[in-house]
Amino acid sequence: MKPIQWSGGKLRLLDQTALPHQEIYLEISDYREAVRAIKALQVRGAPAIGIAAGYGIALGARSIKASSIKAFQKEMEHVLEDFAASRPTAVNLFWTINRMRRALSTADSRGEAVEALEKEARLIQRQQSAAMAVLSRIGSSLIDDNCTILTHCNTGQLATGVEYGTALGVIKAAAEQGKKVSVYADETRPLLQGARLTTWELERLKIPVTLITDSMAGHFISRGKIDCVLVGADRIAANGDTANKIGTYSVAVLAGENGIPFYVAAPLSSIDISIVSGDHIPIEERGREEVLEFQGQRIAPQKVRAANPAFDVTPHRYITAIVTEKGIIRPPYKRNLKSAMQEGQQCRKPG
Amino acid sequence: MKPIQWSGGKLRLLDQTALPHQEIYLEISDYREAVRAIKALQVRGAPAIGIAAGYGIALGARSIKASSIKAFQKEMEHVLEDFAASRPTAVNLFWTINRMRRALSTADSRGEAVEALEKEARLIQRQQSAAMAVLSRIGSSLIDDNCTILTHCNTGQLATGVEYGTALGVIKAAAEQGKKVSVYADETRPLLQGARLTTWELERLKIPVTLITDSMAGHFISRGKIDCVLVGADRIAANGDTANKIGTYSVAVLAGENGIPFYVAAPLSSIDISIVSGDHIPIEERGREEVLEFQGQRIAPQKVRAANPAFDVTPHRYITAIVTEKGIIRPPYKRNLKSAMQEGQQCRKPG
Repeated sequence: MKPIQWSGGKLRLLDQTALPHQEIYLEISDYREAVRAIKALQVRGAPAIGIAAGYGIALGARSIKASSIKAFQKEMEHVLEDFAASRPTAVNLFWTINRMRRALSTADSRGEAVEALEKEARLIQRQQSAAMAVLSRIGSSLIDDNCTILTHCNTGQLATGVEYGTALGVIKAAAEQGKKVSVYADETRPLLQGARLTTWELERLKIPVTLITDSMAGHFISRGKIDCVLVGADRIAANGDTANKIGTYSVAVLAGENGIPFYVAAPLSSIDISIVSGDHIPIEERGREEVLEFQGQRIAPQKVRAANPAFDVTPHRYITAIVTEKGIIRPPYKRNLKSAMQEGQQCRKPG
Repeated sequence: MKPIQWSGGKLRLLDQTALPHQEIYLEISDYREAVRAIKALQVRGAPAIGIAAGYGIALGARSIKASSIKAFQKEMEHVLEDFAASRPTAVNLFWTINRMRRALSTADSRGEAVEALEKEARLIQRQQSAAMAVLSRIGSSLIDDNCTILTHCNTGQLATGVEYGTALGVIKAAAEQGKKVSVYADETRPLLQGARLTTWELERLKIPVTLITDSMAGHFISRGKIDCVLVGADRIAANGDTANKIGTYSVAVLAGENGIPFYVAAPLSSIDISIVSGDHIPIEERGREEVLEFQGQRIAPQKVRAANPAFDVTPHRYITAIVTEKGIIRPPYKRNLKSAMQEGQQCRKPG
């Protein structure tokens, strides 16, 4: 399964809104289609959005006809802005945009720029692939044999666009080491990434999974059925506060209340050291029809008001540890996240 | 709106599975249809199940041809057993069955028994109607002006079969007193009683309501949008532990964590003084298709396993107060629930 591919100057995306019923690949050659695919969650998951945006920006570069590098760079800014406006919460998107902008600034001609942007997009996917493989292996040390893990939303290959996921990557790595693991998957309303995508990925990996509604997580935690909670992240602030799919905060509180560990797994590209705390993370508010409808079927009376924040923020005090490709980070997060980020910077320089 | 009616020896039920899209009334003359309606949640909500079972048992009595009172009483036991086996958690069902068995035991002939059972069923509905009106008024003292209340599942007229609900009854009474109240309604997966029924009832009452997924409750509580949580109960143990719709426990923990009150509203008929704690409350496990499907539409891969406990237990330490028709009961619950029940018994004797 390759959810994000680049070949022949085109972006190929596995349409996640059609899963698990249909496996449809989108062939994208217009960058605006890539923006639309991100907005519509056809590609989703913080690391996957970052990778897809890289290729989408490379597509945008191909479409610009300006021959002077100055005019080219100016037009490219509109492309970058279109991607920046697609989804506000996952920081990987902005991390990619910054990298692409840097690559763009080094080019001396249109031809060089197109080439540099495509090269950078490929590099992002390669580096993220390596990062996810490493963090999965590192995180697997937290998973005991015969462990039952609760997870929320989808954090597998689909969410990262590479071979390993974040939270599901850790689970996959543990299973590959011969550990017997089983998973309780929250369905993750409103868009059911848990029911549609996590169960689908775990079945392919032959890891036993039990689907539950989000409202059941507390029940199973309190009855001692869950050994630990493991989730991904859309943006981690400098103090460790973590924005992730709506419902994550509740599961973190329930884990803490019942004395089981709550782990976050995320690459450094999901860490936003520029903001001091979760209070500053922008939370995307999506359309109310996602709550009022269920796969297109109306579930509430016609005029009912609904709220639809797509993410919530889990304060760092509920987080037992954060698994990254630079190791398992524990409190105090402010100091330890900073060190990991500096190490990450140093590693990137020679490459 | 009259969700449960008895007239001309027939039971008329508003089919709650068809709401909010259609208002369909079921005309029931065979007691087995009443059992099926309870199992299928066409009538649901602990007090409503209790009332519907009373009339259902009265229908059962009409169908028995045995002329000797002994043979009649023996056949009636099968009817009572059929109702007892319909749903395990809401204690109101067993409370009704006990009352009907007592009424049956006093009869000296088939004719007397049929009459006594029908009379008792009507009395149950009348008494429950009075109890709900009183507890709603009593509970409204807990609701401040300009208060925003979070509720889970449906606890209105539909859930009680009488003019006032339990938790929604309290909210209705507060609004009738001129207090400005607004409600956040959890959609309540898997069967969406919040999305389908609570929003529908609140719109009819012209009380502002915002529909959210169950996973959003913690987010809004932590952001200070909710002043208190108010829910119903399916069974309250002698120590105050409360079984209610799956997801209630999570909301209770989140309320406690964020320092807002968590109230339960329930008539004495929902209190089961015979069991010492919530550990002994039987939790109904319903079919997995309710989780794997959404109003008949498949949402997960074909072979996925799912769990479907219909209720969870909130330990009494998370409950700020329990509103009953005998007053607002606060900790220590063991002593105070016992007193309320004794008072309830004394009041019933003269009637």
